[in-house]
Amino acid sequence: MAENLSDARYQVALANRMLANEGVLDAFGHVSIRHPADPGRYLLSRSRSPAVIEPDDVLEFTLDSEPVAPPKVALYAERVIHGCIYQARPDVMAVCHHHAPAIMPFVIAGVPIVPVFHLGAAGGESVPFWNQRDEFGDTNLLVVKPEEGRSLARALAAHAAVLMNNHGATVVGGDLRQLVSRAIFMCQNAEYQLKAKLLGEVATLTAGETKLAGVINALPNVTNRTWEYWTQRLDRAGATPPRPRPRPKARTRRSAAAVKRRGGR
Amino acid sequence: MAENLSDARYQVALANRMLANEGVLDAFGHVSIRHPADPGRYLLSRSRSPAVIEPDDVLEFTLDSEPVAPPKVALYAERVIHGCIYQARPDVMAVCHHHAPAIMPFVIAGVPIVPVFHLGAAGGESVPFWNQRDEFGDTNLLVVKPEEGRSLARALAAHAAVLMNNHGATVVGGDLRQLVSRAIFMCQNAEYQLKAKLLGEVATLTAGETKLAGVINALPNVTNRTWEYWTQRLDRAGATPPRPRPRPKARTRRSAAAVKRRGGR
Amino acid sequence: MAENLSDARYQVALANRMLANEGVLDAFGHVSIRHPADPGRYLLSRSRSPAVIEPDDVLEFTLDSEPVAPPKVALYAERVIHGCIYQARPDVMAVCHHHAPAIMPFVIAGVPIVPVFHLGAAGGESVPFWNQRDEFGDTNLLVVKPEEGRSLARALAAHAAVLMNNHGATVVGGDLRQLVSRAIFMCQNAEYQLKAKLLGEVATLTAGETKLAGVINALPNVTNRTWEYWTQRLDRAGATPPRPRPRPKARTRRSAAAVKRRGGR
Amino acid sequence: MAENLSDARYQVALANRMLANEGVLDAFGHVSIRHPADPGRYLLSRSRSPAVIEPDDVLEFTLDSEPVAPPKVALYAERVIHGCIYQARPDVMAVCHHHAPAIMPFVIAGVPIVPVFHLGAAGGESVPFWNQRDEFGDTNLLVVKPEEGRSLARALAAHAAVLMNNHGATVVGGDLRQLVSRAIFMCQNAEYQLKAKLLGEVATLTAGETKLAGVINALPNVTNRTWEYWTQRLDRAGATPPRPRPRPKARTRRSAAAVKRRGGR
Repeated sequence: MAENLSDARYQVALANRMLANEGVLDAFGHVSIRHPADPGRYLLSRSRSPAVIEPDDVLEFTLDSEPVAPPKVALYAERVIHGCIYQARPDVMAVCHHHAPAIMPFVIAGVPIVPVFHLGAAGGESVPFWNQRDEFGDTNLLVVKPEEGRSLARALAAHAAVLMNNHGATVVGGDLRQLVSRAIFMCQNAEYQLKAKLLGEVATLTAGETKLAGVINALPNVTNRTWEYWTQRLDRAGATPPRPRPRPKARTRRSAAAVKRRGGR
Repeated sequence: MAENLSDARYQVALANRMLANEGVLDAFGHVSIRHPADPGRYLLSRSRSPAVIEPDDVLEFTLDSEPVAPPKVALYAERVIHGCIYQARPDVMAVCHHHAPAIMPFVIAGVPIVPVFHLGAAGGESVPFWNQRDEFGDTNLLVVKPEEGRSLARALAAHAAVLMNNHGATVVGGDLRQLVSRAIFMCQNAEYQLKAKLLGEVATLTAGETKLAGVINALPNVTNRTWEYWTQRLDRAGATPPRPRPRPKARTRRSAAAVKRRGGR
Repeated sequence: MAENLSDARYQVALANRMLANEGVLDAFGHVSIRHPADPGRYLLSRSRSPAVIEPDDVLEFTLDSEPVAPPKVALYAERVIHGCIYQARPDVMAVCHHHAPAIMPFVIAGVPIVPVFHLGAAGGESVPFWNQRDEFGDTNLLVVKPEEGRSLARALAAHAAVLMNNHGATVVGGDLRQLVSRAIFMCQNAEYQLKAKLLGEVATLTAGETKLAGVINALPNVTNRTWEYWTQRLDRAGATPPRPRPRPKARTRRSAAAVKRRGGR
Repeated sequence: MAENLSDARYQVALANRMLANEGVLDAFGHVSIRHPADPGRYLLSRSRSPAVIEPDDVLEFTLDSEPVAPPKVALYAERVIHGCIYQARPDVMAVCHHHAPAIMPFVIAGVPIVPVFHLGAAGGESVPFWNQRDEFGDTNLLVVKPEEGRSLARALAAHAAVLMNNHGATVVGGDLRQLVSRAIFMCQNAEYQLKAKLLGEVATLTAGETKLAGVINALPNVTNRTWEYWTQRLDRAGATPPRPRPRPKARTRRSAAAVKRRGGR
């Protein structure tokens, strides 16, 4: 999908803004992808809120979460989440850490998120919990040390996501679009699950249904539809990231309305 | 209402976007109408999110859900929902399948939606449930096979809608405007019912009230009001579908603001 | 406040749109005022959704809810609500009938709305219920007949509002601004009351506090603030009503942006 | 942060609008800062809704809450909240009084807000309650008299905030940005706490975690991120305050789009 590095950085900015626009990310949270040409590196923004990330903010990191080039900007303190998962999970090509309002009640009450509708099956039959306190005692709950990142990756194991007590969640994907779908539909699933509980008994998918429905979001028919939808919503919100290194001449020819719709300036 | 085929396709795009704008449809779901001139066909968009459908996306299908012309684009996997209902219900002129957040808690908890206010009576005294698992065992919950569509249509029977366990709902109407009203007010009814349950005992309309109030949305006084309202809201959101085959000359004469308000470009 | 009839009609359109913008009104509901020069008449829009009403839509009615001039347009079926209250309550200068989502759970569960914060005291110590079924048996729940309107007015008695089971609410005010404040803050009060009940025991204001706080919204310091606030929010939403009979010359001199901000075209 | 008085007034307007845009303030509530050059004074707007405050609205007050210059405009009745806290707490540089929907259920049910996620730790381990009725009997619940302000300040003591029964909350900060963060994250914390309670047992941070996580929002890495985020959201909403005393020449050179994006005119 990411044909070259420039496009890959644009995709990272796009996914960050898309997930912010859909209510998964807010002032915090971050999305990375594995480097399209070098599996030993990943691409992540400098420390900035997802909704305003531009392609030029996206930097290269080693899997030890060290910046490849000496940084002139502040970096996310929690980038070890990404590095440690890319080390532990060769199949993972994209990672998102978030504190979405939809999942917070679950990580505070310690209640498992279970698949309650076909699209919610994207998260698999179960999502494990990781309580930083169990291994590291009292902390500020940020995942900053390599050993904390490795512990989180162990809890994630082969799952699609891991819930972090009193903190948030980390979701992974086989590619960026699968990651985005999973993150969004896991939030919807959590919202419906909570409200269903208020109404009565929560019925979950069977193991068989979860397996069969779990791949729906990877069907091209579905992927194309959801990606166009979230892209258009971002565009209507005026929040599409600017293309990297815009040429001034091209820009002056654009109308004010077009510049505004492209947003983020 | 649909004077000719071109207008009918515009109306299908409009209803899709309207229901997306009112929170009934999201990345998924679809609205169809029976062909205005041929009751043995129906009109449905190619596979695309409702919020971005354009009149040119709307295609003709036989009641076996086969495209009349060889398709060059992806089609909805679940179009048998529409075909099987048009076969079973000659009175039905419009169909909407959706996963609205308002009804999901009910189809997950298996709790019936009952009429709790006069506009909610549009759904009738009761809405049946259809659990795909009962007849077909473990599936991915998508309604793809003709026998699945026929089973759903049998569960719908003569009702205004059918709830699909752990999946969503399908609503029908005697015309497109009745369908849109029913879908929207059934969602409002579900939201109010859930919150009323949190407060205390839910009081429903009597059978007599439900019958008498059930026709309010078909009164021209009401239909004109709601249609203008939802149309205006869509327009203010900049999401009105473009008119089919716009003539370039006319377009250049429009101001940039008008183009933007028309949306969807 | 309404210096002349033209301004009065503008104020009616403005209040309708304001209450729609604040979530009190939707496709349905209506706001009227007593005629500024003739207490035996009132001003109400033709049948149209509140969010799109223009000053020219506002018509004169006698207190028997008959239009003063032969109508060329459809009228609200429920206008007797307004006429019967103006007949019964000489102190009432403005009336709003609505189905706000915030109060629907209460009129469905039959749970009283009680003052739970200082601004919620605008509704008084208690709000009576009126169940159309008690006196009229099975109806479509619309208040259409004069005897239904009179029954509702009797239930309202000297209160600030009356809750209508499985239907909505009707709120009154000593002037239009008091009415708008009351309607908005009664909705906020209801939302907070429901959520407080989910948390624990709901504490209400004392009778003394309710009386003292009940007049806050009538303080000029407060009225000016809230009216400017709701007006600005309406303007930012691009939904301010057009001025009555705009002169074409003046309009062409306005910029496209100004026209758009004025909204409603 | 506030280099001079002109900028300080701009920052007060900005923080008011920012907190309105994030759902902490609405028609009511107000934000002040201690005078950057004179700790015996504070800066607060004239009586106006936070969302529309302009820098020129921000006035100087003594710690007795008397305006330094004779006022030509209406003042907030509750400004003693600010003065009495600045008197009692030399460490406090910014104060916000609000009725945020998120905290209202807690002050109505009398249920303590406890830290349930790392960012919610900004409010400290506990937030005290203050019930005006305890000391002053039946009032309209507004904090208007100096003795009421002093009583509130005593209840606040050394805490980050104080909850006011059936009224709202008052939050303080060591600087304006800390105040804004605290106010926003305390609201998020309250929302998550309520929903977690609906799901099951609410797990709080330990005392140690609360202490360690309580300083996250003061880290420059975090402060820069959140401030840019909330600023951008305000800008995208078209609600950034106008710069004080804009020069007409500069303005005519700006495009209509730029004027609109700057908002608030």
